[in-house]
Amino acid sequence: SFNQLLQTVTLIPGDGIGPEISVAVMKIFEAAKVPIQWEERNVTAIQGPGGRWMIPPDCKESMDRTLIGLKGPLKTPIAAGHPSMNLLLRKTFDLYANVRPCVSIEGYKTPYTDVDLVTIRENTEGEYSGIEHIIVDGVVQSIKLITEDASRRIAEYAFEYARNNQRNSVTAVHKANIMRMSDGLFLRKCREVAENFKDIKFTEMYLDTVCLNMVQDPTQFDVLVMPNLYGDILSDLCAGLIGGLGVTPSGNIGANGVAIFESVHGTAPDIAGLDMANPTALLLSAVMMLRHMGMHDYGKKIETACFDTIRDKKVLTGDLGGKSKCSEFTEEICRRVRDMD
Amino acid sequence: SFNQLLQTVTLIPGDGIGPEISVAVMKIFEAAKVPIQWEERNVTAIQGPGGRWMIPPDCKESMDRTLIGLKGPLKTPIAAGHPSMNLLLRKTFDLYANVRPCVSIEGYKTPYTDVDLVTIRENTEGEYSGIEHIIVDGVVQSIKLITEDASRRIAEYAFEYARNNQRNSVTAVHKANIMRMSDGLFLRKCREVAENFKDIKFTEMYLDTVCLNMVQDPTQFDVLVMPNLYGDILSDLCAGLIGGLGVTPSGNIGANGVAIFESVHGTAPDIAGLDMANPTALLLSAVMMLRHMGMHDYGKKIETACFDTIRDKKVLTGDLGGKSKCSEFTEEICRRVRDMD
Ligand SMILES: CC(C)[C@H](C(=O)O)[C@@H](O)C(=O)O
Ligand SMILES: CC(C)[C@H](C(=O)O)[C@@H](O)C(=O)O
Repeated sequence: SFNQLLQTVTLIPGDGIGPEISVAVMKIFEAAKVPIQWEERNVTAIQGPGGRWMIPPDCKESMDRTLIGLKGPLKTPIAAGHPSMNLLLRKTFDLYANVRPCVSIEGYKTPYTDVDLVTIRENTEGEYSGIEHIIVDGVVQSIKLITEDASRRIAEYAFEYARNNQRNSVTAVHKANIMRMSDGLFLRKCREVAENFKDIKFTEMYLDTVCLNMVQDPTQFDVLVMPNLYGDILSDLCAGLIGGLGVTPSGNIGANGVAIFESVHGTAPDIAGLDMANPTALLLSAVMMLRHMGMHDYGKKIETACFDTIRDKKVLTGDLGGKSKCSEFTEEICRRVRDMD
Repeated sequence: SFNQLLQTVTLIPGDGIGPEISVAVMKIFEAAKVPIQWEERNVTAIQGPGGRWMIPPDCKESMDRTLIGLKGPLKTPIAAGHPSMNLLLRKTFDLYANVRPCVSIEGYKTPYTDVDLVTIRENTEGEYSGIEHIIVDGVVQSIKLITEDASRRIAEYAFEYARNNQRNSVTAVHKANIMRMSDGLFLRKCREVAENFKDIKFTEMYLDTVCLNMVQDPTQFDVLVMPNLYGDILSDLCAGLIGGLGVTPSGNIGANGVAIFESVHGTAPDIAGLDMANPTALLLSAVMMLRHMGMHDYGKKIETACFDTIRDKKVLTGDLGGKSKCSEFTEEICRRVRDMD
């Protein structure tokens, strides 16, 4: 059948506004005639044997087969011991690189223009090891775990990314003046890998200095690579520079092509179901996904339609400064996509 | 003698531009007839019995007696095993609260206006514990240590600070969704202390969310309290919003009134001795010091003269956008101070 020619993507619509922004993305993909088919899977935490938290087997099975996922926001569970589903997904598929391009959007006014950088965050260890102990009553330790392998792997990813995306420099972000052994190891691996990429400029900078310079002149940065927590912080800071999590895409990349692309904003339960949500972050994540799958022309077309719609300012959701519904914004993008044919 | 009526302050001029900006501060204090006398002490790292790094005994002795220090920038040593002298000073005198007010300076253009917040950083433990291990070859761990006592102490300091400085709210900054035990303990203590300060609004926010919100609208923040590393990051980020480390003061506060105020910029060896340095950060730190010592009127006078000079734009150092020498900028502030009499 015709469908056997289509590549399948696992779609995890998520919670809150997740389903409606997922519908928006599917409509736009349809308008653009993107040759993929969606396989929808819900992700709610389930407990396996021994109480271990895991993602539902049918989602795992789908991802293992399709290798590519697109994911809306997931509720952050409050119960102690219940891990973040976002983190569990990253862990389950060993998605070791969290990639967040931050590019100024023409026509969407923020205090900064011409931001064009990418944060690449080690996604599997560091401060997110989950290892913590009570030493004695009132004294707690958390362990930040840095390994040579994961550090080399993320450094290599960052340099490859720079090379493949026509970027000129990679900055390693660290606090090796304080965490001499752990950040020291991370930094050493970055330096070693840099030796193999003489075409890419390598610099190193303390995290605090990066933060200060970032808010003073973000245009000085290009690709930044860093341990897990620093990436969590810097990626949000950078998103803030260009308009927030509503407009920034994100990808979690693993070995052998496995990847999940996700919008990193919340589930916005207050507006869920009201046709008010902004699908841009999920849509731009889906565009990242298309590029990852080699479908550059489809990606370009959809991205252009989205940016044109924002620049035009006539049909915008409330968070973007407009009065339109999610469905109207979506339809406007679809219309522009169709017009390109 | 008359001098016995004067309070003594330990002055640590520091390295690079430290001595010249210290001279600037002394001149301005003289012009304002501030009733203090300086006791100058150098700080270079020395090794005690067993190889333990310590600050020079004559500096320790001076601080133990005066209880108040003003400090310029100190070289960051490169040799492994040699600790940062800044950190060693904080540790030696158990200066547990690092306080950095960030207030927009009229006439000094940055992308933000009306910033008026204070970061209060736990200064003794957390990610700065210095405890690190090699587990096996290529696997390193750093330990983040959070204690109930230090967390309660810094939370209490933050709320007291808010109350004493006519501030309305305290935000605890954390990643207790990830570091559940350590940041969880920190957060719990903040919540407990908040119960005793019903006049101050208490909120909690993830560090990444704070960073994002900070660059979007810093005016929403007032007093922020956080563990060590987060404070290192956020204080630099916030400094960036209002013009950088050249214009932001800092204080390290301990028990029983002990305190060291310091400019947190670097030693700027490239311009050292050239009469080009900007003494503002050290001067505003000295103003914080005066307030800490109860000399509010002297503090106000010097601060006003400094801000008026910047707003006036006629006599500014190069980093502030002017062409004047450090000595000219200093003299302009002195002139304004004298004119106020
Ligand atoms: C949801 C949360 C656990 C997550 C993180 O801390 O990594 C989020 O902030 C992110 O950046 O994807
Ligand atoms: C000099 C350095 C060790 C220090 C720190 O990391 O705390 C500095 O960045 C600061 O914020 O005072």
